Amino acid sequence: MAGRVYVIGAGATKIGEHWDKSLRELAVEALLAAVKDAGISKKEIEALYVGNMMSGQLQGQEHLGALVATWAGIPGVAACKVEAACASGGVAFHQAYLAVASGLYDCVAVVGVEKMTDALPSDVTAALATAEDQEYVVFTGASFVGLNALLYRLYLEKYGVKQENVASFAVHCHKMAVANPYAQFRRAVSLEEVMSSPLIADPIRLLECAPVGDGAAALILCSEDFLKRNPHDEIVEVIGSSVATNVLSVHERKDPLDAAAFRRAVEAAMRMSRVEVNDIDVLEVHDAFTILGVLSLEVTGFAPRGEGSRLVVEGELEPGGKIPTNTLGGLKARGHPVGATGVYQILDVVLQLRGKAGPSQVSEAEIGMAQNFGGVAGTIAVNVLKRVR
Amino acid sequence: MAGRVYVIGAGATKIGEHWDKSLRELAVEALLAAVKDAGISKKEIEALYVGNMMSGQLQGQEHLGALVATWAGIPGVAACKVEAACASGGVAFHQAYLAVASGLYDCVAVVGVEKMTDALPSDVTAALATAEDQEYVVFTGASFVGLNALLYRLYLEKYGVKQENVASFAVHCHKMAVANPYAQFRRAVSLEEVMSSPLIADPIRLLECAPVGDGAAALILCSEDFLKRNPHDEIVEVIGSSVATNVLSVHERKDPLDAAAFRRAVEAAMRMSRVEVNDIDVLEVHDAFTILGVLSLEVTGFAPRGEGSRLVVEGELEPGGKIPTNTLGGLKARGHPVGATGVYQILDVVLQLRGKAGPSQVSEAEIGMAQNFGGVAGTIAVNVLKRVR
Repeated sequence: MAGRVYVIGAGATKIGEHWDKSLRELAVEALLAAVKDAGISKKEIEALYVGNMMSGQLQGQEHLGALVATWAGIPGVAACKVEAACASGGVAFHQAYLAVASGLYDCVAVVGVEKMTDALPSDVTAALATAEDQEYVVFTGASFVGLNALLYRLYLEKYGVKQENVASFAVHCHKMAVANPYAQFRRAVSLEEVMSSPLIADPIRLLECAPVGDGAAALILCSEDFLKRNPHDEIVEVIGSSVATNVLSVHERKDPLDAAAFRRAVEAAMRMSRVEVNDIDVLEVHDAFTILGVLSLEVTGFAPRGEGSRLVVEGELEPGGKIPTNTLGGLKARGHPVGATGVYQILDVVLQLRGKAGPSQVSEAEIGMAQNFGGVAGTIAVNVLKRVR
Repeated sequence: MAGRVYVIGAGATKIGEHWDKSLRELAVEALLAAVKDAGISKKEIEALYVGNMMSGQLQGQEHLGALVATWAGIPGVAACKVEAACASGGVAFHQAYLAVASGLYDCVAVVGVEKMTDALPSDVTAALATAEDQEYVVFTGASFVGLNALLYRLYLEKYGVKQENVASFAVHCHKMAVANPYAQFRRAVSLEEVMSSPLIADPIRLLECAPVGDGAAALILCSEDFLKRNPHDEIVEVIGSSVATNVLSVHERKDPLDAAAFRRAVEAAMRMSRVEVNDIDVLEVHDAFTILGVLSLEVTGFAPRGEGSRLVVEGELEPGGKIPTNTLGGLKARGHPVGATGVYQILDVVLQLRGKAGPSQVSEAEIGMAQNFGGVAGTIAVNVLKRVR
């Protein structure tokens, strides 16, 4: 029987172009902020999971577990890097969850970190593409924006949806990010700006893509015993945590729009947490491209297939709407430092459940879900959290 | 309270230069061999941990969790890559252990894999060096053999030990590998050959270094419930599992020969498994260089500091000796495909506990320990296993 697991600390750096900070500095800044927020001594941490995808390729640096532990002043702890492409952060959180649930660890930190802006853009694109199959897909020149463009076009044609409706997801995210101090883009954009931005891979426009950025986010997880010894005012419980994979490459899936694996991950997390879709008060979806945000709403069960974008254009993703989603800006505007993203998503849920989401606050938010994808949803991490007090 | 965890399947590829097999093929071959050995259907696997260090740098391939799951025919499972430099395999095993111990998973696979021989040797050396601190150490030109040479020289001077005695560790490993069908080097070498082999980094000789190679090893772990539903003739229990880190860089440690972190990892695993050092029947140490093998014997408690090499020259590491060590060849002769090594070590312990170690069999072996290092023991994974029947 798995033990109960709580989140008692959260911290992050602003996402952006951090020319003055290295990868380790970002990670340590976020980690120590989370420790401070938890009101504990960093010496209490027993294990550290670092979610990161590209440090080997972009910084020539692996062994981030020992590196971050050393620079955070906690050498000695159990530590490793967890990699699952863009889902590295969400999957690292799942490992931290398991470590506490097993009863072997009482206090575990997870930090997601990625530093992307001090590499050549072409190198970043190549490094991101290592999330797909190098031997069968990447060598053809396929990039992630190209693969998602195929999905997007198929979706628009199959369901007869106007691109403007899907693209509105970006408008929503930018609006939500304005008041978020961690966000990379704290400014609103209009639908006209999105639709007239450069075409990247037909039909995807520049402003439909999540940006490249640097950042780190950290969370402190603990057991019930630890919580008794270290009381905290703002406690969130992890009530569901699941990871699933899909056939890696889109071209090998029977139906590119089929989301059975994603659906299974969502169902597993809901079964474990004993919540129904309508119990979810706040949602974080993996909008690396607008189309993924819309698909996520549908697969999770908030709209029939082909109708997810209606929720967007009708304002149902805003606080007070049917399902407040990406209320602090999502990947599109809060930012998408790859290996950190899954941790930022959970941090944003934690802020909502604590009532600390500022102008984006959802009133009486009690249950939140974060969904994190690796590749074209080749890996899916779903975590469900609940406010305790 | 952590649940009990058993190993019911083990499989591996031979280690060597696999020009005809790609990384994914090696991983799938080992994984399916372990599944077959467990006597289960691969559909029973719920989670997959891939231990690997360098696939991003050497193959341009990340997202190994979903890739290996897809190619093994088990897409859907929870999966990720675990990286902790050369300790990736041992740490991945620890995560698999936690996953089952948590009660969330009943059947979990771990596969360690590395493919090193189809990259340029200079690229492999550079990729290995990403286990050290890129910004403060690696950019100076330091390599792992150089860093270990510093330790080695200090050790010889501090304890007045003859290099021949330490170098004998390589002779022992080669002798043990002769009958191991998985081993990279199935031939004996003499001390004269070791001592007259080229000097790589003074005082380390070529034949004191673990080789570069390709390989994959896999293990199937399961819960008590799963075992009841899927009885097996040869069962090994994981009775202790720990991971610890040290200050990453040798030059930042107060004493380069201090092994406090390593000692803590060993003690944690022994405390958890309730075994004393003299209860250990078979030992796997991380002999990336002969000096590390000797230091490991001392830190684990089989000899006072400075006297570990006596055990080697007196034959105490052989079956029938005081502490049978690296009985299937160790890193030196079985081979050291980096991210796979920690899993090969545990597999070798499992073979001994099952009585399937061939001419290297230790009679009535009941308890075995595997020690896996990342970097210059910047990360240490220690796993203790016990024969059930």
